[in-house]
Amino acid sequence: MRLLSFVGRNGQSGYGAQIDETHVANLGAIMGHRYPDLRALLGGNGLAEAKAALAIAPVLSIHEIKLLPVIPNPDKIICVGLNYETHRKETGRPVEQHPSIFTRFAASQIAAGDPILIPRVSTALDYEGELALIIGRPGRYIKAENAFNHVAGYACYNDGSIRDWQRHSHQFTPGKNFVGTGAFGPYMVTADDIDDIEAQTLTTRLNGEVMQQAKISDMIFSIGQIIEYVSSFTPLEPGDVIATGTPGGVGFKRDPQVYMKPGDICEIEITKVGLLRNPIAQDLA
Amino acid sequence: MRLLSFVGRNGQSGYGAQIDETHVANLGAIMGHRYPDLRALLGGNGLAEAKAALAIAPVLSIHEIKLLPVIPNPDKIICVGLNYETHRKETGRPVEQHPSIFTRFAASQIAAGDPILIPRVSTALDYEGELALIIGRPGRYIKAENAFNHVAGYACYNDGSIRDWQRHSHQFTPGKNFVGTGAFGPYMVTADDIDDIEAQTLTTRLNGEVMQQAKISDMIFSIGQIIEYVSSFTPLEPGDVIATGTPGGVGFKRDPQVYMKPGDICEIEITKVGLLRNPIAQDLA
Repeated sequence: MRLLSFVGRNGQSGYGAQIDETHVANLGAIMGHRYPDLRALLGGNGLAEAKAALAIAPVLSIHEIKLLPVIPNPDKIICVGLNYETHRKETGRPVEQHPSIFTRFAASQIAAGDPILIPRVSTALDYEGELALIIGRPGRYIKAENAFNHVAGYACYNDGSIRDWQRHSHQFTPGKNFVGTGAFGPYMVTADDIDDIEAQTLTTRLNGEVMQQAKISDMIFSIGQIIEYVSSFTPLEPGDVIATGTPGGVGFKRDPQVYMKPGDICEIEITKVGLLRNPIAQDLA
Repeated sequence: MRLLSFVGRNGQSGYGAQIDETHVANLGAIMGHRYPDLRALLGGNGLAEAKAALAIAPVLSIHEIKLLPVIPNPDKIICVGLNYETHRKETGRPVEQHPSIFTRFAASQIAAGDPILIPRVSTALDYEGELALIIGRPGRYIKAENAFNHVAGYACYNDGSIRDWQRHSHQFTPGKNFVGTGAFGPYMVTADDIDDIEAQTLTTRLNGEVMQQAKISDMIFSIGQIIEYVSSFTPLEPGDVIATGTPGGVGFKRDPQVYMKPGDICEIEITKVGLLRNPIAQDLA
């Protein structure tokens, strides 16, 4: 299933499953009384119930809805830094024995199609194409070999970064949390639909030009290792999002540097997972 | 007012105002239909209404309730690192032109009286006494000179840190987010009750011995500067918590190093703000 969150014409938020390029099964319409949002659905037995509900759910045209970030309200958004060797090398950061972890607030997220925003205080907006894991089954001290039991699905993430603010101090938080910089979507593909996530290829394109490309298996810390590490310090909950890091080729390490400008189009594509496309715009706030 | 969050004997969570050492006005009992929790109360006109409601709210004995973290469910917990010169010097970190910002998940928070937990994966549990700001009025791009208009109140915070995990990489997140390490309470003092927060003194005691002591005015980045900086990248919302940094004297920079052990008692006291007291225990998870 390709699960997504949206706002309907009535202004109410909901969730559903993509049926084809232009239609969505409105799962929230028939399951919303028990699972008010996609995050709630991922807890409990919601995924199995959603499959059964697909056949009887009312169908919406995609022209009737506006997408939201796949999980608009995650309890936690955990980001892994420097998790591809090509990116670690281009940044000049040392080899680490443990994943580098920072976080995002949900307020920084946007949906597929929404503009990624250049704030008034910087022009250094850069892309970071990433694979996002969405947690299903909760857990603490999860072993790497059991990690996939806790993954509900996968989505594309653009961990849009304001580079000067990211480097104001040794902590990345400010540059990773600007409003309108964390693009997440268009949908999550449930884990049962992807045999081997690590065999997939991640590509970032800016105005059609390939800027980043890597196999998911190129990650320094694997999906299992990341989940083991993160769940050691914080309990993972349904709907939690883990952005697993970006490959080499980011704009600020190019010569000359490339920063995104109003009117640009940035795409993150992961085979079997999806295509996340966002225009760039000035934040008028 | 001294506002606090609690769980009552019926297992329901609520909030109220401390009347004296042993009694609490149960504000949630009469305002809960409009403001389900203290975070919701801080939005809108809740604080003004709470003052009027004090006289008619039912009174609870503190023996009938169990405290929760002051704001159990903040949208954001923002922490400032290295914000006292004595602490910056002891860590050997360079002078920075901007505040160093990291974050906590709400899942790491505990109340006054709850044990601060030593996890199974480390013994390097350290204290960090801090002043916490609790945001009332929301805002983005708040100017330093207007910052206090957005502060609803103050509380004591123990930014308990697992030092080895904090230093696994250049990002502090793991060591700052272990379950049972962020002590917050016992209550918040509303801003109108404190004329000059910067004139107050912060003291951390471990088993009665003074380990940290500083004036709030010793902060490198002032309350106004912190709010201006943080609100530039993320919108501040009612109930958001900003832990403003810790003074010198932390355990891991002492010679010999001091880490907290089961049975220890750690106290954070800020004049006019309160006294936060927690025992230390092994996390059995």
